[in-house]
Amino acid sequence: MAAGIAPVAVDAMGGDSAPGAIVQGAINAVRQGLDVVLVGREDRVREEIRARGAVGLGIPVRHASEVVEMDDHPGRAMRGKRDNSIRVCFEMVRSGEASGMVSAGNSGAVMAGAIFVLGRLSGVERPAIISVLPAVKGRPILIDMGANVECRPVHLVQFALMGEVYARRVTGVARPRIAVLANGEEESKGTELTRRVAAALRRSGLRFDGYCEGRDLMTGEFDVIVTDGFTGNVALKTMEGTARAVGRLLKRALTSTVPSKIGGLLAQNAIREMKRRVDWREVGGAPLVGVDGVAVISHGSSDALAVENAIRRAFDAASARATAEMAEAASRAGGLLEAAERDELELAPAPRRRRASVDG
Amino acid sequence: MAAGIAPVAVDAMGGDSAPGAIVQGAINAVRQGLDVVLVGREDRVREEIRARGAVGLGIPVRHASEVVEMDDHPGRAMRGKRDNSIRVCFEMVRSGEASGMVSAGNSGAVMAGAIFVLGRLSGVERPAIISVLPAVKGRPILIDMGANVECRPVHLVQFALMGEVYARRVTGVARPRIAVLANGEEESKGTELTRRVAAALRRSGLRFDGYCEGRDLMTGEFDVIVTDGFTGNVALKTMEGTARAVGRLLKRALTSTVPSKIGGLLAQNAIREMKRRVDWREVGGAPLVGVDGVAVISHGSSDALAVENAIRRAFDAASARATAEMAEAASRAGGLLEAAERDELELAPAPRRRRASVDG
Repeated sequence: MAAGIAPVAVDAMGGDSAPGAIVQGAINAVRQGLDVVLVGREDRVREEIRARGAVGLGIPVRHASEVVEMDDHPGRAMRGKRDNSIRVCFEMVRSGEASGMVSAGNSGAVMAGAIFVLGRLSGVERPAIISVLPAVKGRPILIDMGANVECRPVHLVQFALMGEVYARRVTGVARPRIAVLANGEEESKGTELTRRVAAALRRSGLRFDGYCEGRDLMTGEFDVIVTDGFTGNVALKTMEGTARAVGRLLKRALTSTVPSKIGGLLAQNAIREMKRRVDWREVGGAPLVGVDGVAVISHGSSDALAVENAIRRAFDAASARATAEMAEAASRAGGLLEAAERDELELAPAPRRRRASVDG
Repeated sequence: MAAGIAPVAVDAMGGDSAPGAIVQGAINAVRQGLDVVLVGREDRVREEIRARGAVGLGIPVRHASEVVEMDDHPGRAMRGKRDNSIRVCFEMVRSGEASGMVSAGNSGAVMAGAIFVLGRLSGVERPAIISVLPAVKGRPILIDMGANVECRPVHLVQFALMGEVYARRVTGVARPRIAVLANGEEESKGTELTRRVAAALRRSGLRFDGYCEGRDLMTGEFDVIVTDGFTGNVALKTMEGTARAVGRLLKRALTSTVPSKIGGLLAQNAIREMKRRVDWREVGGAPLVGVDGVAVISHGSSDALAVENAIRRAFDAASARATAEMAEAASRAGGLLEAAERDELELAPAPRRRRASVDG
């Protein structure tokens, strides 16, 4: 039981396998000593608890009469379905009854609910979603993983500054190495957007390593990888797809001949352990930062294991109590960008335009 | 020997392991019946041929006195070093002495050389680089893989139209399925750029499947995946990095215990075959399209196998004689975009702005 921390509110109604998988995940978390409140249609939720023989755990259930469907329009659902489970979770966070919330439901609605009910942190222009990456070593974060598709420099600089606080206070990296995702490591690479962001971060006093590339996402060499939500989403889904394709090819290889079949059987525990390492469910959900409270978005196809890990992640974030520090960090973005622009105007020998097609 | 096709000019001086690995790759290609001319410092190249006991093959060598270094500025090198091996290759292609060229050197210089010496195809705004993807099935292409970092809609529409011709005429897919890489499959996803490109391609009469996601790159479900060079580069390097990380974890798994070690040994042929499937060297180089001639860019760290496969790819592209068809295809882009814009103005009920942060 996390000392002095209110329970995490878990949206029992969101996700492809809700409420069954969500309730099972909450039961597992409670058995691990975590405090949880299940939020959703009380009869349905209590029935799931009963069916799993977990009545004795005494998990509290908070009734919410409405459900946001996956294809509901986020903003309209938040306004129209006033008593939906996502919104009720956020109201519990706002009132302090819950220390954070977890939902595997409509992620746009979770984002909208966070903004409507908790509100943006003072000075933060755009909340962002963090993806914790399944790297060879460490647990690097990618920010933003998809919430903000078209970004201006101030957004990315704020993502970097908030991500640095997250890595330090929640992940526990003493001095996080920050990089901006780009198409090459050299300063001359990138877009107008990434170049302005890099120029600002170079003045931040943080451990900024410049650009990193797609191949650096899983090495663990960088702790905070900053990108817009479009690129972040493409990169993450590419990782997911590649890992799955390699897994499929491996499976095919290990069933192709008799010796390889025997080999596969002998190595199966080790291979299972490897798969666990890159398993998205092990990583837990995706924390939302830049709002005034803790929210973790779990994958729509979350099973009990994914939900349990997302609950753990929400507790980690709540225990860190880093919200005020994030607001303070984010508020530096504007000044850093202005300083970078001023320096550029002073230092630039002459305006120069390079042709992308020749420098590629 | 490819009937009626001039030899491929191979830049012997470009790449991390040049000229040794390049000469070896050319020797392998010649032994497979392909016609090659090596281009570079004649004494160095002949020495490499001699050292490999391949004088008897009679591979022709064309002298070029200068070399573009990896850190040379592409445009300046092309203009300043008039007798560099990349430029000489392109001059041979222009004169018809060579049917195409291959270089593992400074890729910006290859791009610049192609534009300076061969010229853009009439109507093509930006040449692009194709990456042939190591998919579970088929050989899908990603266009652009990194040459054009900041793109306008007309560029991406032209990439799609040229890519379609490539997939049909060179890869041999009867009716290629085309998709635009985005952050979700729904029409409402994407950026202003991808939405305008998708609207134009919907009117193309081609087999356009809308948006695809990062996880679709390796499935083989799409034959032509269209993106800007920034996103393309991030996606490709993410694939590369993920495959490498999974490979490293697999190796670690297969040496962790005695049974898994034995298992790994028994399965090693099958695993090697799987690695071959996702090996970038097997895929060959990256064809450059949109210029008036055939050029294939090979990875800077190319070894003999990669060079041999890039030469094969150059022959495939040269044999297809698809350049005129590509120019014709690309010239449709402007009209398709205009038609899409007209329809949108007529059909739109009212201007609507959606908040990215709420629809994430």
